[in-house]
Amino acid sequence: MAAVTAIPGIEREGRASAYTDRVREILGWYESDNPGTKANIARLMTHGRLAGTGKFVILPVDQGFEHGPARSFAVNPPAYNPNYHFELALGAGCNAFAAPLGFIEAAAARHAGEIPLILKVNNHDVLHDEKDPISAQTSSVRDALRLGCVAIGYTIYPGSARSREMYQQLRELAEEAKSHGLAVVVWSYPRGSALSKDGETAIDVVAYAAHIAAELGAHIIKVKLPTEHIEQPEAQKAYTKAAVPISTLPDRVRHVVQSAFDGRRIVIFSGGAMKSDDDAIYEEARAIKEGGGFGSIIGRNSFQRPREHAMKFLQKIMDIYAD
Amino acid sequence: MAAVTAIPGIEREGRASAYTDRVREILGWYESDNPGTKANIARLMTHGRLAGTGKFVILPVDQGFEHGPARSFAVNPPAYNPNYHFELALGAGCNAFAAPLGFIEAAAARHAGEIPLILKVNNHDVLHDEKDPISAQTSSVRDALRLGCVAIGYTIYPGSARSREMYQQLRELAEEAKSHGLAVVVWSYPRGSALSKDGETAIDVVAYAAHIAAELGAHIIKVKLPTEHIEQPEAQKAYTKAAVPISTLPDRVRHVVQSAFDGRRIVIFSGGAMKSDDDAIYEEARAIKEGGGFGSIIGRNSFQRPREHAMKFLQKIMDIYAD
Amino acid sequence: MAAVTAIPGIEREGRASAYTDRVREILGWYESDNPGTKANIARLMTHGRLAGTGKFVILPVDQGFEHGPARSFAVNPPAYNPNYHFELALGAGCNAFAAPLGFIEAAAARHAGEIPLILKVNNHDVLHDEKDPISAQTSSVRDALRLGCVAIGYTIYPGSARSREMYQQLRELAEEAKSHGLAVVVWSYPRGSALSKDGETAIDVVAYAAHIAAELGAHIIKVKLPTEHIEQPEAQKAYTKAAVPISTLPDRVRHVVQSAFDGRRIVIFSGGAMKSDDDAIYEEARAIKEGGGFGSIIGRNSFQRPREHAMKFLQKIMDIYAD
Amino acid sequence: MAAVTAIPGIEREGRASAYTDRVREILGWYESDNPGTKANIARLMTHGRLAGTGKFVILPVDQGFEHGPARSFAVNPPAYNPNYHFELALGAGCNAFAAPLGFIEAAAARHAGEIPLILKVNNHDVLHDEKDPISAQTSSVRDALRLGCVAIGYTIYPGSARSREMYQQLRELAEEAKSHGLAVVVWSYPRGSALSKDGETAIDVVAYAAHIAAELGAHIIKVKLPTEHIEQPEAQKAYTKAAVPISTLPDRVRHVVQSAFDGRRIVIFSGGAMKSDDDAIYEEARAIKEGGGFGSIIGRNSFQRPREHAMKFLQKIMDIYAD
Amino acid sequence: MAAVTAIPGIEREGRASAYTDRVREILGWYESDNPGTKANIARLMTHGRLAGTGKFVILPVDQGFEHGPARSFAVNPPAYNPNYHFELALGAGCNAFAAPLGFIEAAAARHAGEIPLILKVNNHDVLHDEKDPISAQTSSVRDALRLGCVAIGYTIYPGSARSREMYQQLRELAEEAKSHGLAVVVWSYPRGSALSKDGETAIDVVAYAAHIAAELGAHIIKVKLPTEHIEQPEAQKAYTKAAVPISTLPDRVRHVVQSAFDGRRIVIFSGGAMKSDDDAIYEEARAIKEGGGFGSIIGRNSFQRPREHAMKFLQKIMDIYAD
Repeated sequence: MAAVTAIPGIEREGRASAYTDRVREILGWYESDNPGTKANIARLMTHGRLAGTGKFVILPVDQGFEHGPARSFAVNPPAYNPNYHFELALGAGCNAFAAPLGFIEAAAARHAGEIPLILKVNNHDVLHDEKDPISAQTSSVRDALRLGCVAIGYTIYPGSARSREMYQQLRELAEEAKSHGLAVVVWSYPRGSALSKDGETAIDVVAYAAHIAAELGAHIIKVKLPTEHIEQPEAQKAYTKAAVPISTLPDRVRHVVQSAFDGRRIVIFSGGAMKSDDDAIYEEARAIKEGGGFGSIIGRNSFQRPREHAMKFLQKIMDIYAD
Repeated sequence: MAAVTAIPGIEREGRASAYTDRVREILGWYESDNPGTKANIARLMTHGRLAGTGKFVILPVDQGFEHGPARSFAVNPPAYNPNYHFELALGAGCNAFAAPLGFIEAAAARHAGEIPLILKVNNHDVLHDEKDPISAQTSSVRDALRLGCVAIGYTIYPGSARSREMYQQLRELAEEAKSHGLAVVVWSYPRGSALSKDGETAIDVVAYAAHIAAELGAHIIKVKLPTEHIEQPEAQKAYTKAAVPISTLPDRVRHVVQSAFDGRRIVIFSGGAMKSDDDAIYEEARAIKEGGGFGSIIGRNSFQRPREHAMKFLQKIMDIYAD
Repeated sequence: MAAVTAIPGIEREGRASAYTDRVREILGWYESDNPGTKANIARLMTHGRLAGTGKFVILPVDQGFEHGPARSFAVNPPAYNPNYHFELALGAGCNAFAAPLGFIEAAAARHAGEIPLILKVNNHDVLHDEKDPISAQTSSVRDALRLGCVAIGYTIYPGSARSREMYQQLRELAEEAKSHGLAVVVWSYPRGSALSKDGETAIDVVAYAAHIAAELGAHIIKVKLPTEHIEQPEAQKAYTKAAVPISTLPDRVRHVVQSAFDGRRIVIFSGGAMKSDDDAIYEEARAIKEGGGFGSIIGRNSFQRPREHAMKFLQKIMDIYAD
Repeated sequence: MAAVTAIPGIEREGRASAYTDRVREILGWYESDNPGTKANIARLMTHGRLAGTGKFVILPVDQGFEHGPARSFAVNPPAYNPNYHFELALGAGCNAFAAPLGFIEAAAARHAGEIPLILKVNNHDVLHDEKDPISAQTSSVRDALRLGCVAIGYTIYPGSARSREMYQQLRELAEEAKSHGLAVVVWSYPRGSALSKDGETAIDVVAYAAHIAAELGAHIIKVKLPTEHIEQPEAQKAYTKAAVPISTLPDRVRHVVQSAFDGRRIVIFSGGAMKSDDDAIYEEARAIKEGGGFGSIIGRNSFQRPREHAMKFLQKIMDIYAD
Repeated sequence: MAAVTAIPGIEREGRASAYTDRVREILGWYESDNPGTKANIARLMTHGRLAGTGKFVILPVDQGFEHGPARSFAVNPPAYNPNYHFELALGAGCNAFAAPLGFIEAAAARHAGEIPLILKVNNHDVLHDEKDPISAQTSSVRDALRLGCVAIGYTIYPGSARSREMYQQLRELAEEAKSHGLAVVVWSYPRGSALSKDGETAIDVVAYAAHIAAELGAHIIKVKLPTEHIEQPEAQKAYTKAAVPISTLPDRVRHVVQSAFDGRRIVIFSGGAMKSDDDAIYEEARAIKEGGGFGSIIGRNSFQRPREHAMKFLQKIMDIYAD
């Protein structure tokens, strides 16, 4: 593809080697975005250990807000300090660091330009929890711009009675973000009174959630790893009729990725709660890779491990994706 | 009518033959719109196999959002890819392709200018369904403009306890769209706690829904094919007293079209759920045509058939309208 | 009064004879309005058969939206066409034609400047009805301006639990309308959970509704003809103590007009449901005139009669007022 | 204080004698306001029979909206006409006339500049009453400016479940009013589900309501005369512990005035329902004066008396304050 | 650090000695803020008896609004006057004075520039109290700017069902404040239906509340002194597992400070209700200091003591912090 854009006789020596054909291919899927947004998606794909592979390992740290500081950081006290996470993400070679306003404000200046940042612009706490949850907007596109972020992150809860409010708030933020050249990352986590607990990770529901995020204009979609359970009777019929393969984790990852425009949107999977068994997580990463997933977003399993352990652990996961 | 606008002695040779007298007649009904909006309505009538006839077959693909991806696409997996639908609509010669933001963003650039696009700016999913539904706004007039669309599409649910919110949101979007030269397509689907299930397609209710959409300023109105059932007792008296003919499908189509300003607004009818019997759908198209309807909007019956079948199927329907 | 404004020695020959002293007297009541708004109020008083009399017969056609198309037009099918009403109002010599957005858009261009138009900017349908109703805003002041209207029309339901929302929406629209030189017509129809069915037309309630509309800044107020019933116990005491005459229809009209700033606001009365007895309606018009009312707003009784009948019927009513 | 501002050797002959030291002292309390707002507060203190005294008798006429026209005006029919009240306020020498939009619009032009006007920008009617009331905004700061008013008036109901909405709407209006040089008058009337009927005029509640209005930035506060009742148990302890004197009406007025920044905000008291006994009202005025109150706002007791009686009655009250 | 910024050979003689290394260190934590905001944070740290120490004693007086005037001021009547508090804060050498709009407007001009002011922009009263409270916005960033304040203050109630609304309102105000160079002080007081009464001051809840405020972008966080109680079962596990020390007050203060970005945000503690025992409060101050807290915000314990007593009392507390 270099021939298309290179000036004949001029070597493209200065071009970062991370701008691989795969990166350009993925960027090609976002054909309606302006160059600013494309550049920021490119930054996410050309930074860190996985630069150029089209794969992602992102460090998100919003658990202090979402679950409380002690539940998040007491097990590894240096993690109370926002700097800790910037440096962990940098040191391990993650593609990006994602956090709410306060954490980003606390260290964005000293690390300016060192690692792509995703400002998580809405958050939810559990001092008051609801059957039909909705997060609060806690920062803005302007904040993302002034803090040098490449993207905003936003959580939707499909299945909540308040999903309409979330979709509309996301719509407004995404339009503003895109018009300012930012990328949009959507955490799509089914929850709410209309879903059973098992339904939150049911394969039909997770695939639906990924599709909704894609239709809402997300560039990058984060979902949970799905189970084999099917929640909606109407969906059950469709899975049965078409004999959609969902019995293995790679099958399910493949189906979720397919549900996001036949694989033409970046879908990454969350690691979930802290697990003491590293190998189990490596196994998940291999399944994500095998199913055509684009990577992992790993929070608690990173910063709740001791720093040295976490570094090796994250790099091992990246090696699986890079392999 | 050519004499009115042509300069004497100058042949209007360059004029596309699709600008037929019928097209100009229909455009004449939208006398309060600015030239930009008229041009976009004209684009819809001068594209594809039905160009110049004043009839419409439109391909809408929002079922991924509305019903879930597996229920929509598993039966025909290439349809997970947004490009598939652009190409199906193009290949079959539909007047337009309608979809939510994500689908349009995914392929609008490569097909720029090839087919009129309708951006469906609100959507509803069934991960949480309600007795009194309301869709979420998922994209904007600015999105429609930046993506090169000719119209916005918006769903109202007359009969829902939240209809006021929808009418008001539509009002704002329609005013903005018209002032920027876009057309406005309204999906008017009666639903809600005040209606019985049968009432949603009752002849009085569908006719009422078409009229409301027309009064709200819609240029093109999409409704479901009505049954002979009459839902509202007060309406029953009026139908009886005036002996309104509603016993055949053409009768009912005629009455619905009449209810939209005596036929001076474009009313098209939706195909509904996937039917295996092609002939039944052809029969419906003939009834729509006989009753003076302006065409069909056919989603699931298009993309849930194999591509080659769908192409022939759609062309056959167009031939019925063009006949 | 001519002496005040005429330049000595210059004949005011060109001045339309419809600018009578009565018209100027009524305009004098709106002393805080800008010249643009005064000009538009004047247009309403100088058009048609009642030009110059200070009396009004207005044709409103929002029943398609409010009650459904079949209930409104099936009895006289030509009335499905918006043009029919423009031409009926023009032909009969009404002061103005009032309708929602769609109807006005459909024929405003071809009749531009022929008859004063009132854009009804909010509407309510009965596919979902409520104990405490509120209409939806369906068009805007900008729409009224682009369509060449002289006024906006807005319905409030005093007595509804949602009256506050309506008053506030009217306030915003009225401020915008007045600042752009439009007049404001308020339909003030008591309804809601706090009122009995009889209370909706009780003399105390109708008089109160007229007063509220006047305080909200309406130039023209439309109310229903009141009955002798008194709804509110506190009001009953006041009527008894002051011995307010309310036993005849002229008495009640007089009291309602008095309640709108002692007759210094234009109050017109609605005809209500279709009545087959023309004479009953003439009798009402005579009572309105005798009580000092400013005229009638006659919808269903106009367009549900055959056209020729309706023309004579409307002109007869105008003759009663002009007499 | 004249020495501070006068130029030595120049007589301040032209200065209106109403700009007394007391007026300047009171203006000094509003040290954060711009000169425009100070000028308008000054206008209220330098007009009418009480000019220069720092005392107030204001005529408010919003009862037509709040209670209905017949309950307000039937006992004295000329009062249906807005002019009547302008002329009563002018003739009696009141400091100001306060009314909703319609009344002010009806006569502001002919009396332009003759008497300070307060535009009552929110109102409530009793066709639908609620346990937790909230008024509707019925006019705006722009209206006040275009109509030549010196202040806006706004009612809050502390104790209502909807008090937050009111405080926030007042905040927005007050900020806008002050930035445009208008004064802000707050009617602070405790009501709502959390208060007993007696609690609405309890001394602790009225004092609290006056304090809230002062903290919200009101320049002039209108409250009802309080009773000796104490509503809140927590407050009871404080009154007992500090032995706050509240047994006489002057005691209670003094405590309310003290609660409004130790007397550094203008607090005036409402007359309440029509009383046939003039002397009882004079007695109240003397008590207000003795307690350091700034005057009375007298509506029904003015305009429900025959005009000649009302004139003498109002002037007698002013004489009590001026004494 | 002086070497970094000083021009060689130029003595920095004019620099206020209060700009100590500790002040510069603390300012360094706010690296994403603009110079205007940094300057205002610096003003808070370089004023009064604790100038240069990085410690804070702030006088807040919003109790008149929050609890009522008599409960707040009757025990010390001079405190009804806003000036009293400005002078108490100035005389005692507090870092700042915080109050709602009315109190600040009442004396900001005469004390302009004498003491840093914090405008408390939301407030709540107890005439209507709720299980899930939310304060009303009572003033604005523009008010803070026009009144010469260095910061806005805002109360959130984590645990309330309406916390989302508060977080979002704070977000908007904080963004506006920061962009105009103001600092943001957040009162983070857990309350609401999801918490037990003891839970409001439970160590896990207070630490969580401090963290939320930090993530929302607060520069200075005010919380209540926590008890040893743990409210949330999930949190209990984390405290047990990590053996977080919380048995002494200094332990708990240390944990709360740690929860606010490992001590990189200023956290100060509220004094709570009036206590007659001065020594108990001194003891608390020593515990706050020992735990690494940044100081106290002392309202009722200041202004409900006689002025001379309060002055000595406050200075004694400052001496503890300065020691």
